[in-house]
Amino acid sequence: MITQIDHIGIAVQDLEAAMELYRGLFGVETFHQETVESQGVAIASFLVGQVRIELTAALNSDSPIASFLAKRGEGIHHVAFRSDAIEGDLRRAQDRGVQLINHEPQPGAHDMLIAFLHPKSTGGVLMEYCTEK
Amino acid sequence: MITQIDHIGIAVQDLEAAMELYRGLFGVETFHQETVESQGVAIASFLVGQVRIELTAALNSDSPIASFLAKRGEGIHHVAFRSDAIEGDLRRAQDRGVQLINHEPQPGAHDMLIAFLHPKSTGGVLMEYCTEK
Repeated sequence: MITQIDHIGIAVQDLEAAMELYRGLFGVETFHQETVESQGVAIASFLVGQVRIELTAALNSDSPIASFLAKRGEGIHHVAFRSDAIEGDLRRAQDRGVQLINHEPQPGAHDMLIAFLHPKSTGGVLMEYCTEK
Repeated sequence: MITQIDHIGIAVQDLEAAMELYRGLFGVETFHQETVESQGVAIASFLVGQVRIELTAALNSDSPIASFLAKRGEGIHHVAFRSDAIEGDLRRAQDRGVQLINHEPQPGAHDMLIAFLHPKSTGGVLMEYCTEK
């Protein structure tokens, strides 16, 4: 079951500049910073209430974030929903005609397992399901 | 101060079809439905944990949602941050060089006051600040 919004992923060109913006707007003092090589991304995240804002930059031109930036420019990239039973939730989505990008959960940031759903089958919204390992 | 993510606004062509999708994916039983004439939108929303997902359709071709759909297609439209001092938070944003779409809070859905920040000055993210009346 999906229990909460885990984070909102925002695609940025320049991680330092984005951190400066959010530091100024929301008074963020500390960012969690991490690179996820398998996704080709560097992230800087912080909590707003229970939800993380995850600023995400491409590590290289093969990264899905690099493609997104080239096509759409900077902006909101995805919404991540926290699941307490990710395999079942993915099957549930698939049974309802949703196309999965990841059929099995993959390693993601914050030591979580993640899987993306294809935005073509979810009204243009790139959804991530995530769960604690 | 910004205290939490209030909602994520998703632009949809067909509200009924979108409700059907989210009913199937997340088992949503009841949607809050409302039209906000001043914004030219019809919304259907539901809670995921503490955060609302706000499915938003255009009421007419003058609606900002109609322009968004024409330019970008369906997808994530904005992120709304709940503020406990909206006027101060808007001034803080402006002092940091952020361009405001609404200089003063306007009536929004759920009987709240809302103001949008221009995505050109926030890394492509359309941000809404909102507060209870």
